Order: sequence, then structure tokens, then C-alpha cells
Amino acid sequence: MKARSVKTFAPATISNIGPGFDVLGIAINRPGDSVLAGRRRESGVSLTVKTNYPNVPLDARRNVAGHVASLMVEEFKLPFGVDLVLYKRMPIGSGLGSSAASGVASALAVNALLPKPISKPDLLPFVLEGERLACGAPHADNAAPSLLGGACLIRSYNPLDVVSIPTVSSIIWVVVHPCLTVETRKARSVLPKTVPLRSAVHQWGNVGGLTVGLATGNARLVGKCIEDIIIEPRRARLIPGFRAVKDAALHAGALGCSISGSGPSVFSVASSPRAARAIATAMVNAFLRVASVRCDVYISRINQNGARISGIQHR
Amino acid sequence: MKARSVKTFAPATISNIGPGFDVLGIAINRPGDSVLAGRRRESGVSLTVKTNYPNVPLDARRNVAGHVASLMVEEFKLPFGVDLVLYKRMPIGSGLGSSAASGVASALAVNALLPKPISKPDLLPFVLEGERLACGAPHADNAAPSLLGGACLIRSYNPLDVVSIPTVSSIIWVVVHPCLTVETRKARSVLPKTVPLRSAVHQWGNVGGLTVGLATGNARLVGKCIEDIIIEPRRARLIPGFRAVKDAALHAGALGCSISGSGPSVFSVASSPRAARAIATAMVNAFLRVASVRCDVYISRINQNGARISGIQHR
Repeated sequence: MKARSVKTFAPATISNIGPGFDVLGIAINRPGDSVLAGRRRESGVSLTVKTNYPNVPLDARRNVAGHVASLMVEEFKLPFGVDLVLYKRMPIGSGLGSSAASGVASALAVNALLPKPISKPDLLPFVLEGERLACGAPHADNAAPSLLGGACLIRSYNPLDVVSIPTVSSIIWVVVHPCLTVETRKARSVLPKTVPLRSAVHQWGNVGGLTVGLATGNARLVGKCIEDIIIEPRRARLIPGFRAVKDAALHAGALGCSISGSGPSVFSVASSPRAARAIATAMVNAFLRVASVRCDVYISRINQNGARISGIQHR
Repeated sequence: MKARSVKTFAPATISNIGPGFDVLGIAINRPGDSVLAGRRRESGVSLTVKTNYPNVPLDARRNVAGHVASLMVEEFKLPFGVDLVLYKRMPIGSGLGSSAASGVASALAVNALLPKPISKPDLLPFVLEGERLACGAPHADNAAPSLLGGACLIRSYNPLDVVSIPTVSSIIWVVVHPCLTVETRKARSVLPKTVPLRSAVHQWGNVGGLTVGLATGNARLVGKCIEDIIIEPRRARLIPGFRAVKDAALHAGALGCSISGSGPSVFSVASSPRAARAIATAMVNAFLRVASVRCDVYISRINQNGARISGIQHR
């Protein structure tokens, strides 16, 4: 039975996770984008976007979901076209892997329409082309965890090598999204070209510790390894109130706190749901007090499953 | 019952382990240094060195074992002096953590003579002072695994924070020590002061993967993460024949190969004892063929226990 239409969900992600710039990411449970993909007789891809957020490209060629679907239609020489509906539940430039979630949801939906669907990991290159469209760099630290779930390490980009880090689910992640936009392109432009070897060594010590902490479920170790001495100092300037928010989080019991992706979302690590709620409140209040910005809050453990098919209709 | 004399053994170590410059190290079973420490009435520290290797300092103040013992005698205001015998079974400048093994063996032996011995981790600062004497930098990636065993991550130097990485013992390590000397000071002088951010990111991706591989006992992952694009290219020049030896190791089935510590020892990763023997032979032959150098060979799993007391005599 061939699928006539498929609905998918792809979760938001926290990437970089402090020291792991461009190599580490985890999937969370909420928010996330959904895509409904259906076959149609006409060739090509049509796109309808349902969203409350501005700035989401409505043109299929300029929208990540549309672009990824088009690439797949072309690559697999589909004898039919695809009608896409993107339910865009995250703003663009949120630091939550918004573009990756759209691309992943689209790839997974179109894949289910294929005569012979390919494996999840094999969808990653298509999603990365979506990332290239969205921000100029095909970084995989959002795309991989949104697609595959769990914690992902991008060990190498050339060739692409994604390692799933086994995780113990004892850590609670608090993500606060202030209603501001930081363009990923802009956030990449403030990065240094070179770094002192001494700083790089300190950073890779923290990456190693973070990996051990994730694998052993050691929230305290994860928290103290969320120390980014290279990227965070540059990008913090792009987020009004960041320093106050981080201080508030740590004061409220966060074991670690840094920028999610390229911001403006800020995440914290907590060891219990109760601590997570207190930390979230402190962070939201700090954003309001210092920068007069309202926030969305998400509290989640690591989402182990990643993108999933939420509905399927056969012909 | 107070100990009158104590004999200890401290194992050699593979540090850096490819991308983990200055932050990663593992203990192996052999070789290692031993120290016999005994109380004596006179204050201060005397040293006797038993060794087949040249260049080992015989003066207690200039020898790592003597220096570490002196610091402890001073710190703990011992009402007695210490006679040390150092059985030095590794050459200096071997890349096997030779100075760390001497310092660790000495610290553990003197500790056992204390009225109230302190914990193993608390001995580390004394051993690091020995490392400072030996090579000018108090690096801990040899000292920590020699003392504590297993795989150690030096997450931070200031403050010192050592993380034990839980390991699965499925990986065989081949260490080939060519009878050459590379001074650690010299090996540090060829390091770059700054590195491109892109290279640093690639390196910390490998550090993360290496950590996951060690924790899960994935020899293949460990092997491919032993890729050091920052330090190895500089230090390889100090080791005659390195490129040929590495090629021979990989050709013989090594899953990864790099410089142990600051060289000239070279290590490989194998997934079975049989593969390890074939790799060792290939590496030894390559050193002989290309650089006309003879080698010592050590094949070992990770030594989980680290330094130990091998004998104790009470008064």
C-alpha cells in the first residue's frame, strides 16, 4: 500500500551545547515543526505555510521544507509532485534549530511517499542542503539530532560522520526563547578565524567532559562542562540581557547555562523538574527585567526518538 | 602499625591519544617505574637510582622522584627523612609518561609512610610539581592516569579537574618505543600558538568521538577519532620514520595510530591481541627499515588500577 499523504513531526534541538560548537546537539521534546506531504499529479513541489511567526519564507524554493522536498523529488525522479503543508511552530533565527526541524520534517514526510523509502541517516544530506539554504553553512548539529534523536556528535564534516552518544536521561534541559531574532549568518560572522591553542585545549577538555557527562547521566559534570570560552563571549553581545539571564539561571540552581545554537535562545541544565521550573522562572524574569523581552519556555529531557511520522493515509 | 618501607609501581601512560592534546591519557600495564621508600633518622631525601638508561638525573633535587618526595616531606613536616630507591625502567623523553611514573611511584610510596596517608587524587598536585621540574609545564595527562588508572580527562587545569572516563576493556593498545629521545621541552616548542577555528572544531569533534568510543569500548570509533590535525603534523618531524611507521601500522590493520605523549613512542589501536601483534611487528620493522632504529614493544589493555603498592614492611 502506497502512502497518499504523510504527516511528520521534527523536534527542536539545542546545538553547540556550550563548548561543542558545530559538533554537538541534542533533541528536545517541544517545540517542533510538522509537515504534511501529499502526492499530486502535477510535477514539482507546492508549499503552504501555517504559522504565527513572521519572516517564514512562503516560496517553496526559498523555504527549507520546500527546498529539501524539491531536492528529494529530483534525486529520486519521482513520477509525481508533492503538496507540502508546513506547520511552522518555531520562529526563524531562534537558536532552536528551526530550519533543521522544517527540513527534517519535510525529508521524513517525502521519504514516506517514496516507492522505496531510505533510512533516516541517509536523509541527512538532503536536510543539510536545507541548512545551507537557511544559513549558508551545512552544519549538522541541529539536523542530526532532530532527525535521529538523542545526543549527536558530528565527528567530521568531510566526510560527514555522525556519532550517536548513548545518554542517560537524568538531565533536565531548560530552554528560554526570548522573542528576538538573531540571524545565524550574523551569528557566524562574529566568530574568530583563529583561536589560541591554549583556549582550544581548554575547549576540547570541556567537550570530552560533556560527552562523558551525557553518557553517564552526570548532570553536574555536564553542567560544569558547559563552559564555552571561544564562541559564547562573541555571541553573547548579540543577545540583550544574556549576562543577566545566565547569572539568574546559575543563581537559581542551574548547573550550567549557555546559548542554544546561535541564539537568542538560552538553555540551562537542571538535575530535577522542580529545579528546572525555578530556573526557567528566573531566566524569564531576567529577560523581562533587563531587556524588556517576553519569552517562550520549554522544559524537556533529551528526546531519544527524533523525528517521527505522526500520521499516514493510504490511497 | 607504621610502615617502615614501601615499594610501589606506577605504570607508563599514553597521553594526548591523538586529538586530546594535554587533556587525555590512559594507563597501560607495562612498562612502569618502581620506588622503594624507607624511613630514616636523618632529615631530607636521599636517592639511589637503579636503571639501564642514561640521562636519568641522580641528584635527588633534580630527579622527579626525589623532588616529589622532598615536597611531600616538607608539606607534611615529617619528623623523619626518606631513603628512596628509584627503579627506572623507562628512558626519559620516551613519550610514555616516564617522568610522571617516577613522580607517581614516589608520591604513593612516601604517602604510605605518612602518619595519615592522603587519598590518591590528593597526591596529584605533588606529582604535577614533578612534571613541572621535568618539562617546564605541569601537564596532568600522564600523571593522572598513572596515578589513578583507566582513562583520564583533564577537563580543566585551573582549577585542576580530572574526570575518570569509564572504559570498556575491548581495545588493545600497541606502543612502540624507538630508542631515540625527544625532549618534551623541545616537543612543546614546535607547537603553534594559535590554530584556525575550523581545525579546532574538527579536533574537538574527534575528542568527543574518542571519549564516546572509550566509554562504549568501540575500537573502530576510537581508531578513527585518533586523528590529530594540529599537534601531530608538527611533532611528526621530530620522529625519524614516523610517517612510514604510521603507514605500516595502518596497513597491518591498526584502527588508528599517532604519537604517544610528545614522542618518539608511537601507539596504535587494535581490536584483538592477534591484530596487535601483527601491527607491532609492522611498526618495529618500519622503524628499523626507514630510520635504522631498534624498538621496545608493549601491548596492553587499559590498566584500570594505576599506581599500586607492591610491597610494604612494617617496623
